[in-house]
Amino acid sequence: MSILAIGTVAFDSIETPTGSADRVLGGSATYITLAARFFCEPVRLVGVVGADFPAPYIESLRRCGIDLDGLEVDPDGATFAWAGRYHADMNGRDTLATHLNVLQTFSPILPARFRDSRIVCLGNLDPSIQMQVLDQMDAPELVICDTMNFWIDHTPEALEALLGRIDCLMINDEEARQLAGESNLMLAARAIMAKGPRILVIKKGEHGAIVLDETSVFAFPAFPLEHIQDPTGAGDTFMGGFAGYLTRHTTFTSDSIRRAIMYGSALASFTVERFGPERLLHLRPEEINERMAAYRRITHLPDVQPLTWTNGSYHG
Amino acid sequence: MSILAIGTVAFDSIETPTGSADRVLGGSATYITLAARFFCEPVRLVGVVGADFPAPYIESLRRCGIDLDGLEVDPDGATFAWAGRYHADMNGRDTLATHLNVLQTFSPILPARFRDSRIVCLGNLDPSIQMQVLDQMDAPELVICDTMNFWIDHTPEALEALLGRIDCLMINDEEARQLAGESNLMLAARAIMAKGPRILVIKKGEHGAIVLDETSVFAFPAFPLEHIQDPTGAGDTFMGGFAGYLTRHTTFTSDSIRRAIMYGSALASFTVERFGPERLLHLRPEEINERMAAYRRITHLPDVQPLTWTNGSYHG
Repeated sequence: MSILAIGTVAFDSIETPTGSADRVLGGSATYITLAARFFCEPVRLVGVVGADFPAPYIESLRRCGIDLDGLEVDPDGATFAWAGRYHADMNGRDTLATHLNVLQTFSPILPARFRDSRIVCLGNLDPSIQMQVLDQMDAPELVICDTMNFWIDHTPEALEALLGRIDCLMINDEEARQLAGESNLMLAARAIMAKGPRILVIKKGEHGAIVLDETSVFAFPAFPLEHIQDPTGAGDTFMGGFAGYLTRHTTFTSDSIRRAIMYGSALASFTVERFGPERLLHLRPEEINERMAAYRRITHLPDVQPLTWTNGSYHG
Repeated sequence: MSILAIGTVAFDSIETPTGSADRVLGGSATYITLAARFFCEPVRLVGVVGADFPAPYIESLRRCGIDLDGLEVDPDGATFAWAGRYHADMNGRDTLATHLNVLQTFSPILPARFRDSRIVCLGNLDPSIQMQVLDQMDAPELVICDTMNFWIDHTPEALEALLGRIDCLMINDEEARQLAGESNLMLAARAIMAKGPRILVIKKGEHGAIVLDETSVFAFPAFPLEHIQDPTGAGDTFMGGFAGYLTRHTTFTSDSIRRAIMYGSALASFTVERFGPERLLHLRPEEINERMAAYRRITHLPDVQPLTWTNGSYHG
């Protein structure tokens, strides 16, 4: 089953309390496709890089089976580059530099054979570019979209229009509060779903996620990790694993969405173990099954029988 | 099955984004006992108030079946009073005033018939007072202890000694990091357990909790709420529900601990719905069963079969 991801392909320069990495392979489209490829084929990437983008980076993606016919190489430009420094607790981070470079003029034209993709992942980008991709699709069954505070602030109309055309929005808790103008997360969630998306995934980093669909609310914890080197790409990996798992289904039920969330979270738990996409590039599929089994144990909730108060222990 | 709770009985003055309450009934021992009383009898409270403590407050506790023979009334003192203001997101809060009053000279002497209590809840207090209570107990089967950053900073030796004598420490994530001097929560947890407690519950407020025992790690989300009026007492309610549920068991297995965590969390989800202990005072036991059922639905994880990669979808 086919999946298409549009997003950034980037140089990431990262500092965390455990070390640093300079101009490693990064970007939302990179992480989304590297996670999705464990579940489906073809995995199609749409993005742009500059003439400076190293052949070995292209080769690592190709070796993972990613279809790169939608990766434009701009001979006159430099690749998008991001630099950031994570705080001591690895949750917050400061952006040190953002060089848009080739992204400034990016206007994606999809290869004709990409247009029938069944699931579309719109990685974080200008909402008008995300819309431009949607306009080129035939009839995707599921459109999943990420965004960020910058677009919520600066391009609210374009974002509103986009929200009316996607199935699933995947954002973090602060972005959800900001988008809805409401500090209670559950009320914010209802307000956002009223704008269009019938599935809303609110990511809370190390605290897991809350997922709402038309009929249910699902709260689940992240996989607790002892050794985190670099959180970069965790959210995009989560999206890729989520979307990838769903390609194996013909309908998107609450249960399949919950399983997809678990796979997305399990995949993300690998990404953060090493700098950049290193762990994801070399991940063995058996490791995913092992981590899912551990995840099941860690989140296992035993059955609960209704309490009875026949022994007089309750005083009302 | 008997439970004993020592802690504060207080006047709380609270401001939240949804309103305010002045000198309402509060304190850790109040919330712990009000939650525990749904599960067991007797529920014994040890604490101190001043001559200014209103008879109706005493009466509300008594009406809930709390055994108040351990509640000392200091005729020369004023009741401990706390005032605080919650931030817009209801997570953080600023303390506006702390008047220790009768707590400054509090030196609890347990009624003789309290000494056989099976489970002991040591609400947040000076660790030397918590120890003084432990010294008066016969042989409790489970000792659960709370503490806070102030004691971690100012009485580290007393706290270390106490950690060697308790079974279960229940603290929030920031306190765990501070107590261990380690920013990764899982590594902090291991370091704390090396100090004594064989069960560690790390509370993360609206993000749920992580629980470690000798053999397992358990991560679970909080009950997502749309209407929070006042988070005061949520952590103590959680401890009371947790401890109360465990009084119904003869052994403390991983499964009974997980169920206890769910009950503690469900009880806490009621406390935050109204200012002070209002919701807890008038809670009907059927409401607990209903919320537990909703909690089960919200946290339900469907079974997951190991993935197979026979269709060529994986490229390693």
